[in-house]
Amino acid sequence: MTLKKLLAATAAGSLVFAATTASADEGMWTFDKFPSAKVKAAYGATIDQAWLDHVRLGTGRIPGCSASEVSGQGLVLTNYHCVAGCVQALSTAQVDYLKDGYLKATEEKRCPGMYMEVLQSIEDVTGQVKAAGAGKTGRDLVTATGAATSAIEKASCAATPQNRCQVINFYNGGQYKLYTFHRYDDVRLVFAPEFKTGFFGGDPDNFNFPRYNLDFGLLRIYKDGKPMPTPDHLRWNPETPKAGELIFVVGNPGSTSRDDTVSELETARDWTLPHTTILLSERRGRLIRFTEESPENLRVGEDVLNGLENGFKVFNGRLISLTQEDVMSVKRREEADLRARVAADPKLAAATGDPWKEIADAQIAQHDLYLPYSTMEGSGGGSTLFGYAKTLVRAAAEREKASTDRLPEYSDSRLPQIEHGLMAPRPIELGLEQLNLEFWLSKAREGLTADDPNTKLLLGKESPEELSDRLVKGSRLGDPALRKALWDGGEKAVLASDDPMIRYVLSIDPAARALRKEWEARVVGPTAAAASKIATARFAVYGDSIYPDATFSPRITYGAVAGWTERGHEVPPVTHLGGLFDRATGLPPFDPPQSWYDAKAKLNLDTVFDFSGTLDITGGNSGSPTLNARGDVIGAVFDGNIHSLGGDYAYDPKVNRSVSVSAAAIQEALDKIYGRGDLVRELNSN
Amino acid sequence: MTLKKLLAATAAGSLVFAATTASADEGMWTFDKFPSAKVKAAYGATIDQAWLDHVRLGTGRIPGCSASEVSGQGLVLTNYHCVAGCVQALSTAQVDYLKDGYLKATEEKRCPGMYMEVLQSIEDVTGQVKAAGAGKTGRDLVTATGAATSAIEKASCAATPQNRCQVINFYNGGQYKLYTFHRYDDVRLVFAPEFKTGFFGGDPDNFNFPRYNLDFGLLRIYKDGKPMPTPDHLRWNPETPKAGELIFVVGNPGSTSRDDTVSELETARDWTLPHTTILLSERRGRLIRFTEESPENLRVGEDVLNGLENGFKVFNGRLISLTQEDVMSVKRREEADLRARVAADPKLAAATGDPWKEIADAQIAQHDLYLPYSTMEGSGGGSTLFGYAKTLVRAAAEREKASTDRLPEYSDSRLPQIEHGLMAPRPIELGLEQLNLEFWLSKAREGLTADDPNTKLLLGKESPEELSDRLVKGSRLGDPALRKALWDGGEKAVLASDDPMIRYVLSIDPAARALRKEWEARVVGPTAAAASKIATARFAVYGDSIYPDATFSPRITYGAVAGWTERGHEVPPVTHLGGLFDRATGLPPFDPPQSWYDAKAKLNLDTVFDFSGTLDITGGNSGSPTLNARGDVIGAVFDGNIHSLGGDYAYDPKVNRSVSVSAAAIQEALDKIYGRGDLVRELNSN
Repeated sequence: MTLKKLLAATAAGSLVFAATTASADEGMWTFDKFPSAKVKAAYGATIDQAWLDHVRLGTGRIPGCSASEVSGQGLVLTNYHCVAGCVQALSTAQVDYLKDGYLKATEEKRCPGMYMEVLQSIEDVTGQVKAAGAGKTGRDLVTATGAATSAIEKASCAATPQNRCQVINFYNGGQYKLYTFHRYDDVRLVFAPEFKTGFFGGDPDNFNFPRYNLDFGLLRIYKDGKPMPTPDHLRWNPETPKAGELIFVVGNPGSTSRDDTVSELETARDWTLPHTTILLSERRGRLIRFTEESPENLRVGEDVLNGLENGFKVFNGRLISLTQEDVMSVKRREEADLRARVAADPKLAAATGDPWKEIADAQIAQHDLYLPYSTMEGSGGGSTLFGYAKTLVRAAAEREKASTDRLPEYSDSRLPQIEHGLMAPRPIELGLEQLNLEFWLSKAREGLTADDPNTKLLLGKESPEELSDRLVKGSRLGDPALRKALWDGGEKAVLASDDPMIRYVLSIDPAARALRKEWEARVVGPTAAAASKIATARFAVYGDSIYPDATFSPRITYGAVAGWTERGHEVPPVTHLGGLFDRATGLPPFDPPQSWYDAKAKLNLDTVFDFSGTLDITGGNSGSPTLNARGDVIGAVFDGNIHSLGGDYAYDPKVNRSVSVSAAAIQEALDKIYGRGDLVRELNSN
Repeated sequence: MTLKKLLAATAAGSLVFAATTASADEGMWTFDKFPSAKVKAAYGATIDQAWLDHVRLGTGRIPGCSASEVSGQGLVLTNYHCVAGCVQALSTAQVDYLKDGYLKATEEKRCPGMYMEVLQSIEDVTGQVKAAGAGKTGRDLVTATGAATSAIEKASCAATPQNRCQVINFYNGGQYKLYTFHRYDDVRLVFAPEFKTGFFGGDPDNFNFPRYNLDFGLLRIYKDGKPMPTPDHLRWNPETPKAGELIFVVGNPGSTSRDDTVSELETARDWTLPHTTILLSERRGRLIRFTEESPENLRVGEDVLNGLENGFKVFNGRLISLTQEDVMSVKRREEADLRARVAADPKLAAATGDPWKEIADAQIAQHDLYLPYSTMEGSGGGSTLFGYAKTLVRAAAEREKASTDRLPEYSDSRLPQIEHGLMAPRPIELGLEQLNLEFWLSKAREGLTADDPNTKLLLGKESPEELSDRLVKGSRLGDPALRKALWDGGEKAVLASDDPMIRYVLSIDPAARALRKEWEARVVGPTAAAASKIATARFAVYGDSIYPDATFSPRITYGAVAGWTERGHEVPPVTHLGGLFDRATGLPPFDPPQSWYDAKAKLNLDTVFDFSGTLDITGGNSGSPTLNARGDVIGAVFDGNIHSLGGDYAYDPKVNRSVSVSAAAIQEALDKIYGRGDLVRELNSN
């Protein structure tokens, strides 16, 4: 509601500047274009290159999240919800770390599939990538761009295979940059609080504030079996965040759609977002019931459910934002302004053409193809076994080709990460696997209809219930040794495999590949070509002082510790430890574990717990360090308020707020609740 | 997609007539305004008053559905899915009629809460009702209209308490008519096929065609313990439906929104429909998993799940229809045309004012109130025990007042139906009750947020899981004797009750009543007043040859047996019994029961099974007889195709199709599969 008001007010003012000048504190800036002058003007602080280098080298990207190095011995801070998957994977029916927490200073166990990537350098490769795609359209453009990208990646990391080289697309194809990361593949779990602590308030409190959530976890980077020295780490600082104080977040925002055209936003509003929220809701219902069926199902399913519920809120928040006519009308006017300025410059107009119409045309193709493409080329409902089979089948076929002829995700530069993910030992939860696969198959039949050839290919004469059961019970891909044998054996081994999941994926893969080809030819290619023209036009009209949409790559955003006004009342920017006890009902999800009650008398209940700020963040930023003006870690960002969800399309400085857990609260809990003075000393030793 | 094309074509033609002239075969006509001349012109058939009276007296309204008398001994034809609730209620953990069918000519058992209402007369009471509301606004208007309505109903049925008198609002308050029905309260189950027969194809085939579904069931009206003579019954005719043949459906379409204003459609598109589809999807997921947990849960939950999945498709189909810009643009132009014609007539303009703005203003109030109102004044997630408690608590308080001062649904004229529903013995399925209540409470907390006063009132310090469990396990309202004691004991007994569900409803009822009051004052009242002005203006501009929106009251619609063109290929209008065996996979929902295979050799596989037609129907029409030009029953309508769902807003003659099961197929199955020659003889004896 407030977002609606603000945008209406903006519309009444000077809209021309909406696309050119970022609102106060808006922007997920790249490290090579940080607006230090704006920070100086707004907050009086000097952010120089040394400061930027320091915070860049002390932070990293982990799967789906962000993290920071907080000691010289490889200690890494991130969110609880970013390590919950690891906690889950290390648990068994006998030892439930999710419930009990991973609390004791015993063995630090390796997190399956976990890695951390720290950005070392940025290089502009726009010219090379664009040259490769010059004059090409449709799928040819996708293929040529992909091949150029992976060739650059491969060549750049050839001498340093322990690094990861990634060419990242900015401004929807306006620029391409080569990001080189140090990659660490042995990352171990150091500490995670109990689920009831790390996710206090659960789904009801998610995206809400005030908040009482100790959403942090600790990892450690290992090298050669020992903690790795991390001299570039950030300084830990459990000082109290103060209202108005300048703060920063350094992390990897996943994706935003702020540069999308109006026709793309309409597709999201009318088609993909409703479809997605509906799918997530039914899957959520199945999972909720699944977790209620037994304590073991709860153990197995709770973290998956949390992720799903978080995703539902995100997509639903976006949908609500786009159904506000005022949001769309600002987007329409921004687009009209850009188009009018392009049209007013004959040379620019000739060079630009009408990419907006090209993207609108691609929406029609998207409408036709979205369901079959997303069904057939998806992840089997998130089934791990299906994912293994698909990766093995695809990689085997692709590796027979030259690297540049492959599907881009199987190019030589990407194979090490794929192999790492595939070989990591993970528990396979059969009940969850079956639920995921059945859900996918039943929605495929519903969406495509029973008479569709793709449905017949997927199901034959079987039902979703029977087929999923047969595949999950029959597959032996849960065994890492079998996966390794099939990987090492290549196409011959895969084609000879009698594993039912492998056979199944082999049977549907040609249809999935054909749909992907068509999708790339009719949707991805034309959209990429047109978006790149729009980006070029935007640079020409507004200059290059604009920030690009998020791409799960390192960014830095600045702002202040601040609350906001919600329907007429002020929301204070900080909560305190004592508030958790006030909010507790004794029943999930408002039931702190016994450890908190045992330690209550010792705790300083006035310690700042969580705090909100004007930082412009989105999903993927989870676990990012919240820094003060000196670059010290004063917390870890773990959420936004409900208004932050519209941030996918536009940042609203009045109400869009990030939510961090304070270093002070983490330290107080480690010390007085969990008896981990050793970690407190390590955090403060540098 | 095809709907979009058609409407675009219409828009290019003469839109002015869109609101004035119904498309070919469009219209759910009332019996007092049937367009016989149009039928004569289009099909050459003569539909006179005797014909109309005959089909009216041979058809009836049953809970949520329609039905027809098909023998002189009270035999009633309807859909399987309209009697499935009764089949479910008569089943136990030991005897599962849902699975096995209710097949044998043994005792015909009474269906709890079932009734049938046959329309006897129609009287225009518009003057009386409008006079009562004259000069009133907001909630006063709602109350005055409700009081006038129930006073008319009470007075009209005073001498014939076995009748039901109902004042029905047509054209959104443009007209009020007193409908007098004969009401029959002792309705028993005669025959229902197996679930696998009555719902062959399940959810995947629902709203699709070609179809192979024997969706019929038979009831019988009893009086004084014996089958009641029904001399006005319709003639059974198992002739083969022929393409192009004129056919009719007589039944009770539930509701349509064809006269809604653009601002109301936008509320549906942006708010209520997304919210509803999301809620239904999560509940669906919970229920699917519930039915998979055990055979007993499947028995208990399957029919509920079918109803829910049907509802989901309906609302999702409506949402998809409204997100088509072409649909909305036709609606915008229709509204603009009416407004322009009103504005062009100064006298009419002065009398009309700006009711479109009044309704648009009510949308803002609706946006604020929808969540708290629908949460607090709802049905407890469909929990039967909650429903009993709410009815008992409300009725006890209301019956202390004069009939005209009560909430309208508790006026004297309505009390007999309420008591009938309350006293009917029904099995209480605790697992399902708990699921429903937990779902409601958890969505209340999610929608309103944990900090909302209404959430605190609903939950106190309990969780949805714990509270629902406590209430369901503790309540004894499943016992009809207790319900009778509380009903008879009135307010004193209810206030003294220690039943936890009664106590719970007592604790939340004041808040629910307050929200209802506000809802009526700010949404219902202003909308009703404005809609009535629009209806009057529409009559003035277009005359009164337009049909009103559906209101779950008797209507007649005409059309032809016809298929349609789907993405370039012709869908034939009929299927044959043999097709079921071709479609069968042997797994749910494509697994005919053994009875069909046993009888296959004897069956005439060329018998027409299901057939589609251009009849303009909607939910509530289920079970309606499909009639030929002579008024004979040649089938029962049970569904529409997927394009029929957009029919809530507009009828598209090119693709909107009804789906009926043929009398021929019913007779063939009764005779050769189920050995019910006795019923075949009864059907053909008149």
